[in-house]
Amino acid sequence: MKKKVGRQSILFSERPYLRGRGTVVGKKEGEGPLAGYFDVILDEDMYGEKSWEKAESKMLKESMMRAVQRAGLTKEDIDVMLSGDLLNQLMSSSFMARDLHIPFLGLYGACSTMTESLVMGSILIDGGFAQNVLAGASSHFCTAERQFRMPVEHGNQRPPSAQWTATAAGAVVVSSQEKKPQPAPAVRATAATIGKVIDAGIKDANQMGAAMAPAAVDTLLNHLEDTGRGIDYYDLIATGDLGFIGKDIMVDLLIDAGLPSDKVYERYDDCGTMLFTKEQDVHGGGSGCGCSASVFCGYLLDKLETGQLKKVLLMSTGAMLSTISPFQGESIPGIAHAIALEAE
Amino acid sequence: MKKKVGRQSILFSERPYLRGRGTVVGKKEGEGPLAGYFDVILDEDMYGEKSWEKAESKMLKESMMRAVQRAGLTKEDIDVMLSGDLLNQLMSSSFMARDLHIPFLGLYGACSTMTESLVMGSILIDGGFAQNVLAGASSHFCTAERQFRMPVEHGNQRPPSAQWTATAAGAVVVSSQEKKPQPAPAVRATAATIGKVIDAGIKDANQMGAAMAPAAVDTLLNHLEDTGRGIDYYDLIATGDLGFIGKDIMVDLLIDAGLPSDKVYERYDDCGTMLFTKEQDVHGGGSGCGCSASVFCGYLLDKLETGQLKKVLLMSTGAMLSTISPFQGESIPGIAHAIALEAE
Repeated sequence: MKKKVGRQSILFSERPYLRGRGTVVGKKEGEGPLAGYFDVILDEDMYGEKSWEKAESKMLKESMMRAVQRAGLTKEDIDVMLSGDLLNQLMSSSFMARDLHIPFLGLYGACSTMTESLVMGSILIDGGFAQNVLAGASSHFCTAERQFRMPVEHGNQRPPSAQWTATAAGAVVVSSQEKKPQPAPAVRATAATIGKVIDAGIKDANQMGAAMAPAAVDTLLNHLEDTGRGIDYYDLIATGDLGFIGKDIMVDLLIDAGLPSDKVYERYDDCGTMLFTKEQDVHGGGSGCGCSASVFCGYLLDKLETGQLKKVLLMSTGAMLSTISPFQGESIPGIAHAIALEAE
Repeated sequence: MKKKVGRQSILFSERPYLRGRGTVVGKKEGEGPLAGYFDVILDEDMYGEKSWEKAESKMLKESMMRAVQRAGLTKEDIDVMLSGDLLNQLMSSSFMARDLHIPFLGLYGACSTMTESLVMGSILIDGGFAQNVLAGASSHFCTAERQFRMPVEHGNQRPPSAQWTATAAGAVVVSSQEKKPQPAPAVRATAATIGKVIDAGIKDANQMGAAMAPAAVDTLLNHLEDTGRGIDYYDLIATGDLGFIGKDIMVDLLIDAGLPSDKVYERYDDCGTMLFTKEQDVHGGGSGCGCSASVFCGYLLDKLETGQLKKVLLMSTGAMLSTISPFQGESIPGIAHAIALEAE
């Protein structure tokens, strides 16, 4: 059965269920506007561990376990686990997968990983390859700062355009069966678009939103064309972590591409601008795999489950730079994947 | 349609075709016993680029393009590209994907990535989500040495158990349609097993084979149990890069697990022991994503296409350590995925 539509999209004939979800966030994220939507808010970002990396791994594991629990399942019911993070060699995900002992596929899409994970998980369910899949992603401000920027203790100044890596983990159980009794409405994955790596030539690692926005525009336009849907098919289209600057660029580019500006302003938002308020001193806004992971698994899924949103397109965005590519003169390519979630 | 069998395996009802393949290897790999099976052998490992990382990315790109060409397709026929490498933030794959401009899913399974890529690619084809998928992986001795070990110029001594990261890239086009005219026989993916992360407590990064062998044993035993196949179902079972020491450990563990020793000796081998001869001074044998990628895409697929092998189980193996996890007291967990390829 052919499920591919158009150039780079998929329609899910079985419409996999998003059956359970879990979120763990850091202290700062727990002081933001979405605080009421998270399962666990840490008092301190070490989470009782001896390193930030171990703390991040524990956050991811806890969000996975919460998702399994809320799905009304046990760890033994999960066929495959998919996840990724920003750490070199996926340290958070690898050690989480060791502890949970579930067949594991590691993914890397920089900050686009939560959507990549959801897309792959939905493919596994939709094709009959699994019955229950765990899909997650995580990031941690301190692990990312020391890996990508400066030692945290150094207290380096950050330009206003720099984004703030979220200390957050989110996970979802994607399933072939709805939870019974199913709290109405059920949330189901209906379509996905796999993104291309797009390079707009941005070389400033403190301008990630600008680097990723062209990829998000490309994926969204292809998604709409492939599926024949208009932007008003969705109540909300949420990019991952373009932040305040990237969101403005995205809006401009979408209007330039001919989408109606009133609809764009009405229906488009960015998780990086939702997780924190500007008063929290996060400069360009939130970023990191955990940003869209926690906003989606905490806030957006709640809105879908309670019927306040009916149709959401999640488009996590990733900047595919490495720690050494800028030193070799490379610009920062971006990527964005999209997945459509509908409450019914 | 349910395609999952047993605890962690999949049977492919559509039996996706491995329709084209490409390989690019370094100078040393081109002096080994499999030299005649590779498409491109480099004169020098910079491949005309200004950095080893860019050279690795170019190798991966070239192997992808060779695979497309041999499949009788063009770049525009490819729906999705899957790949990964050992570099932080998948630098080789990300920049290759930027250049090729095909929808891209990044994977990280350390040296198990070639099989992870093949498994995911076969899932996309088998479920009708795509018609043609590119699956690949790469590694480079110099990029890996400087990232994981010592500056190459330093000329650090290596213990005899240390393995040699292959400078190699391999790629395959997995397709819903056979190539026409099909050179008999066609090679098709028939089953897969997704591995768990297994930690045997090894802490010596110069003993990767020992760290990965338990995961390979676990995956193989589960594969045989899930599919009801005996070890003699396969003409050859090839692990990814356990090397000379890890291969011996694997043999011992399989015999301990009750598999018939004559069959194990007869039908089991390791790509890390096939790519180089011991005289090439590679110590523990070959390793890296490119090791099983090049041995599979170059040598094993040739043997399947010419009917010299009928049924092969490829099990690339990965060591899920990060560059900092050993400093935080962590041991080295391993993972192995398996995919069954049959000529018919």
